[in-house]
Parts: sequence; structure tokens; C-alpha cells
Amino acid sequence: VNDALCATLVAVDWGTSHLRVWALGPGGDVVAEHKSDEGMGSTARERFDDILESHLGAMSVPTGIPVIMCGMVGSRQGWAEAGYLPIPADLREIAANAVRIPGCARDIRILPGLSKNVPENPDVMRGEETQLIGLTRTAPVESGETRVVCMPGTHSKWVHMTGERVEDFASFMTGDMFSALAAHSVLRHSLSEDRVDHASSAFLDAVRASLVSPSDISARIFSIRPAGLLQNPEPSTARAKLSGYLIGQEIAGAKSRFPVPAMIDLVGGGVLGALYEAALSVASVTCRVHDGDRVVRAGLIDAASVIWKTESA
Amino acid sequence: VNDALCATLVAVDWGTSHLRVWALGPGGDVVAEHKSDEGMGSTARERFDDILESHLGAMSVPTGIPVIMCGMVGSRQGWAEAGYLPIPADLREIAANAVRIPGCARDIRILPGLSKNVPENPDVMRGEETQLIGLTRTAPVESGETRVVCMPGTHSKWVHMTGERVEDFASFMTGDMFSALAAHSVLRHSLSEDRVDHASSAFLDAVRASLVSPSDISARIFSIRPAGLLQNPEPSTARAKLSGYLIGQEIAGAKSRFPVPAMIDLVGGGVLGALYEAALSVASVTCRVHDGDRVVRAGLIDAASVIWKTESA
Repeated sequence: VNDALCATLVAVDWGTSHLRVWALGPGGDVVAEHKSDEGMGSTARERFDDILESHLGAMSVPTGIPVIMCGMVGSRQGWAEAGYLPIPADLREIAANAVRIPGCARDIRILPGLSKNVPENPDVMRGEETQLIGLTRTAPVESGETRVVCMPGTHSKWVHMTGERVEDFASFMTGDMFSALAAHSVLRHSLSEDRVDHASSAFLDAVRASLVSPSDISARIFSIRPAGLLQNPEPSTARAKLSGYLIGQEIAGAKSRFPVPAMIDLVGGGVLGALYEAALSVASVTCRVHDGDRVVRAGLIDAASVIWKTESA
Repeated sequence: VNDALCATLVAVDWGTSHLRVWALGPGGDVVAEHKSDEGMGSTARERFDDILESHLGAMSVPTGIPVIMCGMVGSRQGWAEAGYLPIPADLREIAANAVRIPGCARDIRILPGLSKNVPENPDVMRGEETQLIGLTRTAPVESGETRVVCMPGTHSKWVHMTGERVEDFASFMTGDMFSALAAHSVLRHSLSEDRVDHASSAFLDAVRASLVSPSDISARIFSIRPAGLLQNPEPSTARAKLSGYLIGQEIAGAKSRFPVPAMIDLVGGGVLGALYEAALSVASVTCRVHDGDRVVRAGLIDAASVIWKTESA
């Protein structure tokens, strides 16, 4: 008796550094789940099929069950290029632009991303657009109502929407910058391995400093090093400051790009979500928090229902 | 016949990544020069003496000639700790606080750095204070006159001075951030090896963008990657943009920290100096440009004259 034999759909979120596979029942309930670090960033093109089938085989998913995927697996360097829809875009157009992987016995579709092709500050997203579809299903707003969505990560996304329409978005390389500076700048001598406490004054004061004075971020970040030389701080302080300065800078940047309302949607829980929620509260912004896995599954299920309902019609 | 036999002083600038040794004649003229990459960052404490003597031996500098040094060689991890003078500080106090290296036959002194030990944004410099001494000798101002000095580098320094008094300073980790992001963030896929052209519109437009909108630097830097995906830019563009965004951000930050006048002193020529001069012109700031080696030698000579004149008096 294997639950995955009851699966009617497989939903896959295949990013640069992670792979998540869910076998889903008729109501969208998760009957089996696999998570791995076989991200597309470390996967050669001819290996995608084998990796996916190894998970589906282990979950006993029959070949007739369709697979819907989102994430970097649809990039030019991925399994098959699924392109980008230019914004402003209606999220209901995403499913209609899915790409079927050629030459596979199994019916596998990859959803496209979104792009903002403007001369200044062009941008792309891939994977988050599917979370946005899910958000419109699990936490809908009225069709004319605007909302701002914050999606923290290596390249955090901020999205300005009206109903199901993405008006504008911007990516902030906060997580990527944190990792590069923590490991490969002079700050590597200052940072301990302590986890950042979202309630610590070191973190919250750092967020506030970047909100108040965003111009001089590259001086403020440097000051972490001399603080260590001159002031004998707690070992955990340096990492909390770097995190707070960068997240504060991101919020200041988002405020300069969009009208950020007093209540926004925050996608992603856990440690990072708690840091963003605390940082946003310093900026007098409160959050509706949404689990990232839950909204991406909801988005994949919604897109699948459009794709296969349309084709069988 | 070896010119260095005429040397009356050896001046040394020993930083994290470089070593510069000058044998100087009675008038301060350079009679021999050695430059190497034996920086203090890669030098074990017990090796400093051997490395210095190998250069002095190759230059035939007699043991009786004194040596004056500045830079990271005076840090806690260096040869001997020379401490920091707190600001506000009169540059004429630097020489009086030099530290003699114990247990050496040769008379070797290391100049202290400067520190700003404040709760928010503490800071330190080491090496640049000696360039500032040199600047006050080679390009003096009236005793009550204020000036702002920009010293580009891995950790660029901006200094606010009145006569020979350092009122305030700030370090910006522009060069360090450039290297970390160019090699260890998503931008590594976008940057070519092309040298940045300080007259290119990619560089100058990027400077302008950061000056106009410094809050969203972490979005602007990210946009270099999607620009490469969507817009097929010249290969040299990405590196020019990253450089321009970061240098523009530094200038915006300096303006938020000090009153930056329409004319400042820029220490350091070459490629980096040209980039800063061009970037500052975007910010309507003109520069008096000073050669970095020349001003550090002038500062070391001035400090040496104070140390050994005082002691022989």
C-alpha cells in the first residue's frame, strides 16, 4: 500500500540549489514529499530526467501521472527554456505559456517566469510567480485591490499587484550579498557562526540605521569590523548587524520603488521569515505570513488544473 | 657604487597586501625602491624581520640607517602593535606615538593609526593617516581651513580635516564589496574581465543612478544580471555598472556623512583614481589629485624628522 499510487499530479519546485517534489492527491493533499539539494545549478542538462524519475520511482508514481514544475529548471541553463512573460502580466496567463518537455514519455510542463524588460533596472523572476498564483488562491483579494508581497531569499522579490495582475516587481540581492560579504570580505574575520536573533537589539538597531540613512550602507557595513577591534562586542553581534543592515536596506529600497502599505504579504516562514517580520515591524509594516511551500504547491495545482482541464476539454 | 649607500632613512609602507620600501637620501629623494606583494596579511609574525632585511640587504642599506613604517604592519596581527590615536586628532601627534620594534639591532619605528570609537559606526585607519601628514606637507592649507580628502581603495577613506586636525572620517568598503560580489555572487556569471572605462556611459550612468537613488542599491546591483539575460549588452557593461553603482553609492554616503565641498583632495592616481575623478565629476565635485606613493613618503619623512630630531636634541 503506497499512498503515492493515489497521486493524480506531481508538483515540482526546482530551484538553483534545491529540488522539492510533491505527489498530490485529487484534492491537492500531499501524499508523498521528497526534498533534496540536487538544485539545477549543479545539474547537467542530460541528468534532469534521471533525477526526477529517481524520485518518482522511489515514490511509486505511475508514468501516466502528469508533472508540473516551476523554478530555475525552466531557465536557459535548465532542462527546457520556459521563457518569461513581460509585466504587467495577469497571473492567469502563466499556465497558458507552460512549455512541455519534448521527448519524455511522461507529460511534464514547466511554467514560465516573469520579466521586466526596461532600460533601467530590468528584472526577472522564476518560481516566485507560481507562489504568487498560489497566494491569489489561498489568500485572495478583490480584483481591483492592490497588495505588496515580500518574498525573502537569496534574491528577495518585492511585488506590487492589483488583483491577479503583477504591476511591478524588484529583486534585492540581500541574501546573496550577505553570503558573499560574510565569507569573502574583511568581515569574515568578525562574524561568528551564531544564528541571528530577530529580537536582539543588535539586529533591530541595524535595521533602523539602514532605514534612517540608506545612502551610506557601504560605510555602515564596514563599521562592523572596527567595532570588533575597538569595542569588544558579543560574538553574535557582528552577524546580527550585517543581517540587519542589509534587510533594512532592502526595505528602504522597496519603499523607494513602490508605495509600501502598512500591511503586506510575506511569503516564507522559518528563521528568515521571522527576521523579515521583525525588520518590517521596525519600518511600521505588519505582515500576513504565508508558508512558501504551501503557496508554491497551490500555484502549481492551479496551473495544472488550467493546463490539463483545457487540453481534455 | 650603490646609491642606497647614500641613504639616510628608509621609509616603508607595509599594508595587508603590499610592501613598499624606499631608501631615501638627505633631501628625501628616492635612491632605491622595492615593491613586493609580501603584504602583512600573508606574513607570519616571525618573518617580518627577515623580509625587511632581505630588501634592505639587496639595497645595501647599512644597519645604522633608521627605518620608519606605516600601515597594517602596526596592527595587532602585525609585527608590533602601534595602536590608534582617537579623533579628533592633530596629525603632528602621530610621530610622538610611534612604537619602536623591540629586540632589533636596527632602529625601526611604526606609526600609529587613527580611530573613531563611537557607538554607531566606529572606524579605524592605518597607513592613510601617514598619507594625510604628507598631504599637509605637499599641499598645505591654512590652519583654520577645512578640506575633504577622498582616498580610494579596498576600504576607501573619506576624511574631514581642519588644517592639520582630523575632525572625522569614514571608511567605505567599496573595493572589498566589488571583489566579493564580482567573484562570489550571481554576478560572477555576468562580469567579463574588461577593464572599466571611466569615460563610458555605462559607468557614468551607473554613478548617477546611485547618486539619485541610493536607497535601492541592492536592487540596482542585482539588475546587472537580468540586463545580461534580457538585453544582450556589450560584455564590458556589467563590470562598468557594478563599479559605477558602488562608487556612486560611496559618494552618496560621503555626502550624507560630511559637508562635501565643490573641490576635494583625491589621493591615488592610476586607473582607480581616474574612475573616482570621473565619478566625482558626475556629483559636481572637482579634485586636486595627489599621488599616493608620493604623499605617503612625504608623511613618513616628516614623522621621521620629528622622531629622530627630537631624540637627538
